Amino acid sequence: MVVGGDAAGMSAASQARRRRGPDELEIVAFERGRATSYSACGIPYWIGGAVGSEAELIARTPEQHRANGIDVRMCTEVVAIDLAARTVTAREVATGEQTVQGWDQLVYATGSTPMRPSAPGFDAPGVYGVQVLDDGVALIAELDSGRVERVVVVGGGYIGLELAEACQVRGLDVTVVDQSATPVGTFDPDIGGFIAEAVAAMGIRLVLSDGAAEVETGPDGRCVAVRTEQGRRLPADLVVLGLGVRPKVELAVEAGIPLGPSGGIAVDARMRSQAEGVWAAGDCVESTHRLSGQRMVVALGTHANKQGRVAGINLGGGYATFPGVIGTAVTKVCDLEVARTGLSMEEADAAGYRYVTAHVDSTTRAGYFPGAKPIRVKLIAEKRSGRLLGGQIAGREGAAKRIDVLATAIWNEMSVDEVLGLDLSYAPPFSPVWDPVLIAARKAFEAVEDDVRADSRA
Amino acid sequence: MVVGGDAAGMSAASQARRRRGPDELEIVAFERGRATSYSACGIPYWIGGAVGSEAELIARTPEQHRANGIDVRMCTEVVAIDLAARTVTAREVATGEQTVQGWDQLVYATGSTPMRPSAPGFDAPGVYGVQVLDDGVALIAELDSGRVERVVVVGGGYIGLELAEACQVRGLDVTVVDQSATPVGTFDPDIGGFIAEAVAAMGIRLVLSDGAAEVETGPDGRCVAVRTEQGRRLPADLVVLGLGVRPKVELAVEAGIPLGPSGGIAVDARMRSQAEGVWAAGDCVESTHRLSGQRMVVALGTHANKQGRVAGINLGGGYATFPGVIGTAVTKVCDLEVARTGLSMEEADAAGYRYVTAHVDSTTRAGYFPGAKPIRVKLIAEKRSGRLLGGQIAGREGAAKRIDVLATAIWNEMSVDEVLGLDLSYAPPFSPVWDPVLIAARKAFEAVEDDVRADSRA
Repeated sequence: MVVGGDAAGMSAASQARRRRGPDELEIVAFERGRATSYSACGIPYWIGGAVGSEAELIARTPEQHRANGIDVRMCTEVVAIDLAARTVTAREVATGEQTVQGWDQLVYATGSTPMRPSAPGFDAPGVYGVQVLDDGVALIAELDSGRVERVVVVGGGYIGLELAEACQVRGLDVTVVDQSATPVGTFDPDIGGFIAEAVAAMGIRLVLSDGAAEVETGPDGRCVAVRTEQGRRLPADLVVLGLGVRPKVELAVEAGIPLGPSGGIAVDARMRSQAEGVWAAGDCVESTHRLSGQRMVVALGTHANKQGRVAGINLGGGYATFPGVIGTAVTKVCDLEVARTGLSMEEADAAGYRYVTAHVDSTTRAGYFPGAKPIRVKLIAEKRSGRLLGGQIAGREGAAKRIDVLATAIWNEMSVDEVLGLDLSYAPPFSPVWDPVLIAARKAFEAVEDDVRADSRA
Repeated sequence: MVVGGDAAGMSAASQARRRRGPDELEIVAFERGRATSYSACGIPYWIGGAVGSEAELIARTPEQHRANGIDVRMCTEVVAIDLAARTVTAREVATGEQTVQGWDQLVYATGSTPMRPSAPGFDAPGVYGVQVLDDGVALIAELDSGRVERVVVVGGGYIGLELAEACQVRGLDVTVVDQSATPVGTFDPDIGGFIAEAVAAMGIRLVLSDGAAEVETGPDGRCVAVRTEQGRRLPADLVVLGLGVRPKVELAVEAGIPLGPSGGIAVDARMRSQAEGVWAAGDCVESTHRLSGQRMVVALGTHANKQGRVAGINLGGGYATFPGVIGTAVTKVCDLEVARTGLSMEEADAAGYRYVTAHVDSTTRAGYFPGAKPIRVKLIAEKRSGRLLGGQIAGREGAAKRIDVLATAIWNEMSVDEVLGLDLSYAPPFSPVWDPVLIAARKAFEAVEDDVRADSRA
């Protein structure tokens, strides 16, 4: 029994089916929406027109899952889970008809929902969160209607900026309002500064260090402006929420499936919840951050897929574990690529680390090679040990994917001088003779040594 | 005292100077050619026209080094080293004038020289190896002369193919002859097959599984054709050697500086040779392959820079080590990107490993995202342990640099199931929700498990 038919739920179903055939295990999956296994991360690009149609975002259709022996019930929402009776109550969205279905094992994979402030007007017509395909359908219909000229995006995180760019590409007047001093607050301010520049260069208005206080509505009840904490009034025919997401756990809470300290479903390494026979995976669960040691909810398709796979393998009688996260993320703002992994300075402070930083400005290819683009690599290394704690990259084409080298290095608890020794690929069309990652490691290593010397003098 | 003024030698000089000022340490560097610190790897792109001028390939000029307190003697070749007297004999190339100069510590950084078969004709006019800037000057002069129409490249390794492409771009008729069944023999044949296709698609003729037996010369003594071992006659107005390079160690051998088993200068982890007070770095030294445990010579600018840095730090009284290599390499053939790291199947066999392989064909971005390009990732994993032994990538734009993730994973002795857990960056413009590297790891892990099951049945 699977609750939720996107990445995590259907990965779990598919893996369980690989291990146990239809004779051994019946698999029923309930999905509230019209689609299974789609890329929610692709929705902003569909809105912006880079992706031509909804269908392109769907990795596997209900029919394909059914052909694989998974009984997918579309447009059917699970409204209650009974742990004692081992049943779920499901409701057909169209008819409201309810059925009760038994299960032996359950996969809870309900995903997340956009954060929506409780302040006045945030539930008004014209205020959109974008999380599932139908949100995209609704938003595109609004944008196509011709009555939208001014869009205010509340929150300048990844999704906020992706949606802002999508609206900007469609020729609209776009304002992003964010409480931080630089957008995407999970980046350090120096890298965030690059993001702010790139956003502004696109012609998107940025209102920073200010939050949305309320949504002003017109006589018809629809949004007409966003009023900010600093007293600004930002006219808005449409408001888009980009404040991040929170795990969808209401059903779990009602059923008595325990949550963890960060508010996601508490799971062990095998994605087993604390309720007997209940597994959980995807945006609704907690993961361990390998550097801070804290439990946290990270909503990201790649984790959802992996966690679903792990849950499905275990549920099917195999053995697999999800090893946690280190906060790797990447995005693109116009032609600026930015990426991060590990801890930011703020996160490192919060986790109790003391550290040095170093950054380098270099090029993606040999400086003399056509198409060489600027790249900045910033590293955060633990004081004394030199252990790499975090990395951030900003640059143009070919810059951001280098973050994966840093992610792999952090994963393996390498120190920056060990990173400096890495045998990374080199040829003029691909990097300078010292890859920017290596130059940054060299500088960070020097910073660690300088810091040790300063301490010994102190 | 530094012998050789390119990457390794001048990195050593610069690092030593950073640690010890001109009052403490006099640094003299001899360079046979006209340039210091240039990118030999960039020469093919200069020949092909992608790089506009020789000057662009020069990272630091003699004047810049002199301003840094390094006494660079250009166009001056060291012809003898006397370990007992602690002197070198240097000869000005232009005048032939010789001087004898004393030293306390010596950095031997003479680089490498293109392999040139001893068979008839390979020393004839019109046969070119390309290693130093002046080789590029000479080759460009030939190609500009208008008398060259047909070029035969002997050897289809990295440099052979880069030079073949450079000649092809200039509108010449190009043939590459190579003894292997697929070009760039350090790749497994399946990946080599992609390279062969890309080379052929450019209009370059490939003669494979055949070697150059001799160079036929005309009445004026200049090359007119290459005759192959299989009896082919390939007309050639110009012959380019692409058989790889060998370390330039003649001077060291004469002086009594010991070589290692692979024919490069034997050095320890700090780049100290076995001769008292003599350091060595760059293409002329041996390194340890971290997977095979063998000593080998790898001629690559990135290693030369790192080794030079290590030698210079140690020479200057600091401490640094060079941790060895794992055989990472990358190149581009027209718009095909190929890269490798760790061991190929042949190398894994030779090193005594038993292994499984897996490959995946995916895309560089989410499949639905504009600009998604094909990528193949092939992994070699040790039997039973699943330890990642090697990785190879072939694809279009954005494919090859992913090899650095595999290189970092191999460096850390990760197993393929550990790789599968890595928190790599994901967003639709940068990768599918399962990065191709992760899919390959998943498939390799399954292959390891299948192999264990097969063994237990046997």
